[in-house]
Amino acid sequence: MTTVEAVKTFMEPRSIALVGVSRTTGEDSFNILENLLNYGFSGEVYPVNPGIDKILGLRSYPSVKDIPADIDLAVIASPRSTVLDLVKECAEKPVKGIVIVAQGFGDGDDAGSAMQTEILTIARKAGARIMGPNSLGTANSFYNLNTSFAPSKLDKVPVGIICQSGLFFPGPPRLILAGKAIDLGNACDIDVSDGIEYFETDPDIKLIVLYIEGIQKGRSFIEVAGRVSKQKPILVLKSGRGECGANAIQSHTGSLAGKDEIYDAVFRQCGVIRATDIEELADLSIAFSSLPLMKGRRIGIISMSGAGGVITADACERYNLEVAKLSAQTLAEVKRLFPPWLNISNPFDAWPAFQVSGYPYQEVMNRALKLLLADEGVDGVVLISGIFGKQDSWDVSPAVLQACNTFEDKPVVCWLYGKYIDVAAKLEESGKVAVFPSCERAVRALSRLREYAEFLERNP
Amino acid sequence: MTTVEAVKTFMEPRSIALVGVSRTTGEDSFNILENLLNYGFSGEVYPVNPGIDKILGLRSYPSVKDIPADIDLAVIASPRSTVLDLVKECAEKPVKGIVIVAQGFGDGDDAGSAMQTEILTIARKAGARIMGPNSLGTANSFYNLNTSFAPSKLDKVPVGIICQSGLFFPGPPRLILAGKAIDLGNACDIDVSDGIEYFETDPDIKLIVLYIEGIQKGRSFIEVAGRVSKQKPILVLKSGRGECGANAIQSHTGSLAGKDEIYDAVFRQCGVIRATDIEELADLSIAFSSLPLMKGRRIGIISMSGAGGVITADACERYNLEVAKLSAQTLAEVKRLFPPWLNISNPFDAWPAFQVSGYPYQEVMNRALKLLLADEGVDGVVLISGIFGKQDSWDVSPAVLQACNTFEDKPVVCWLYGKYIDVAAKLEESGKVAVFPSCERAVRALSRLREYAEFLERNP
Repeated sequence: MTTVEAVKTFMEPRSIALVGVSRTTGEDSFNILENLLNYGFSGEVYPVNPGIDKILGLRSYPSVKDIPADIDLAVIASPRSTVLDLVKECAEKPVKGIVIVAQGFGDGDDAGSAMQTEILTIARKAGARIMGPNSLGTANSFYNLNTSFAPSKLDKVPVGIICQSGLFFPGPPRLILAGKAIDLGNACDIDVSDGIEYFETDPDIKLIVLYIEGIQKGRSFIEVAGRVSKQKPILVLKSGRGECGANAIQSHTGSLAGKDEIYDAVFRQCGVIRATDIEELADLSIAFSSLPLMKGRRIGIISMSGAGGVITADACERYNLEVAKLSAQTLAEVKRLFPPWLNISNPFDAWPAFQVSGYPYQEVMNRALKLLLADEGVDGVVLISGIFGKQDSWDVSPAVLQACNTFEDKPVVCWLYGKYIDVAAKLEESGKVAVFPSCERAVRALSRLREYAEFLERNP
Repeated sequence: MTTVEAVKTFMEPRSIALVGVSRTTGEDSFNILENLLNYGFSGEVYPVNPGIDKILGLRSYPSVKDIPADIDLAVIASPRSTVLDLVKECAEKPVKGIVIVAQGFGDGDDAGSAMQTEILTIARKAGARIMGPNSLGTANSFYNLNTSFAPSKLDKVPVGIICQSGLFFPGPPRLILAGKAIDLGNACDIDVSDGIEYFETDPDIKLIVLYIEGIQKGRSFIEVAGRVSKQKPILVLKSGRGECGANAIQSHTGSLAGKDEIYDAVFRQCGVIRATDIEELADLSIAFSSLPLMKGRRIGIISMSGAGGVITADACERYNLEVAKLSAQTLAEVKRLFPPWLNISNPFDAWPAFQVSGYPYQEVMNRALKLLLADEGVDGVVLISGIFGKQDSWDVSPAVLQACNTFEDKPVVCWLYGKYIDVAAKLEESGKVAVFPSCERAVRALSRLREYAEFLERNP
């Protein structure tokens, strides 16, 4: 089996044995079998539980070996003490892939670590691959698959997530919007590089997102991530930065956190974009899956509030971007829009223009946005607007989308406040504009887009 | 007039003249008179507009001088070109306080700056005080007052905000929850120190929040803020950190941004807590208005997800807090709750305890939280939980509130994910627990609580 074939066993299995599935069904039962059937999974599903005859109309088998069909994937969802024997049965069957859900292996005591080693030896001999232990398995919205106990469906978005935690699986609302997900758990066999290699050639996936606690095979990561990141952006949240986090990782996935500076250097070398925290990882997932990259660091700013413009200019400096100097032509055009006493500059303060120009608010925003996007000295735009009173008067979404459709090669990011939810949804649905919860986070996202563009320019 | 009396004119006026009020009323008209009447303002209100007889049943006067009653506050809401003459009339009337809404003074061209100086001279001679120009005035939820054109009411919360921007006025949802608000605008007369002095003795206000672009009277700020921050915490977002932001400030409020390092040093000396961005200012407003301070830097962590615990431990290190070492007694108690193979430590991974202990999920969270809060080596707790499926089974709010009511002297902050909104609302309504949008932001808030406690310890 190639790596891609191995991961495919977990992402697109034709037949699944659910080992240790319970008879309890219904809301809040977290029954994997029920979830799979409700999801409309189109492959074969075989419950395995020696104490049960039938579950949800399906015959249950005492052992995976009793199933009268080939099995691609076995999901072992029973307690730690039973896992070793069940893996042996899977190896004898044989199956191609095994998800082990239970905790208490490399993440637990010495006995658990020893069992994890033994499981891996058994699987290797039988040519089977392991996901986990301590893994919720996989989810694939393009295949109606979710092996986790959470009865949730991913959205069909072009983002693949590879993580060492169930934290990124359940939802909605999800921490990170993804269309395919792999929970490596302790990653004793299938690891992060395998997942990246799988997504490398996956036509459904344009962006790869990682949450990792430790990488054991550093060399293969450098090779794979360094290669793939030139085709598809890779984002990472790597925890265990300091001693406290590294200790906590020991009890979580048993990973060796390693020196954080080394990870930093490896990510930089490979063009992998490292997020500082969960919120940045979510922000960047949106930015990298919906926006064009920036050709330079020069930002145009349009704000309904003067303070919004000031704070955004501050953020540009903090995140190593520049407040664009506008061309003489742009300034002359803008002057027509603004009252004569206003110091015309970037950031544009849209409120006085609205008050004095006689244009409707949306018209002011649309004209200002197009002027900035047309300026060759501007590489991306931050637009700030509040929504108040009658929403129609303040709904900037048509104005923004019209401008963005005219200038498709520059990213536009928005910070909206007030009654912004419906307007933000309209912008986000377009898949062309990204909306962030603050102007600072909007600027940070643009900055990381530029960082990635510079990596690509250095590594053509 | 003392400073407090002067600001009181703007915060609790008995009579208001609305100069330049329009006849247009109804939704989206932003009519200050209509807003005030709808708000139930209990003082006298006098419209002033020479072209109009009556507005909303109230007689309109051609000039403020024609009003047959004493006027505390005049709100001048007409264009810049009319302001100078209107200020002269207010001075002749005389009135005690004047809000000037129009832009284009110190924030505009040279003519605007000259007018601002002239306005101030006229007001000083007449003993009147100026708020602005470029100000939305004031709002006071305890007095049914809002002089801004936004038809919104503040909530009766013990937070007073002093800002140089309308950005913090409108809503809901508001950027910062406040019960009283002062928009200084260009701050040519009433400035940030005056506002702080007013809130110093205000029994409704426990926390003071600032958004400032520049402070002209540095010495009075150091004196007033240094004194008041020993009684009531003061939070600040100061923009214009770098050159770009400082330039943008020139066109916004005409303030001199000044050297950022000097502001940093002044804030530190005065015990004023500086937020990095808008979101941190909002987070700290919640933390400082609802949580007890921390007696030390040692944090207990309970997480439904192992990764949540790891990321929180990382955040403790980033924000200069410690992951608490638990006492032998606590560890022994915890062991009873957890499966035997689990490396018991802080962070607590609540999921295996729930899976193995047989306790309901809420019981696990309640017991773990009480054990941590009872430990003398723990100064504050971060609790992380997801809400899925039937909400009742995962609603941790009664469990958390019961524990917090037993240990009232230690702060508990939460990060909730999944279908968290109702559970978060129940926790926040208690006024005893703060909920944040990520574990990192929860930890950051605790860190700033500790920073302020250390300032108080150094300045008893």
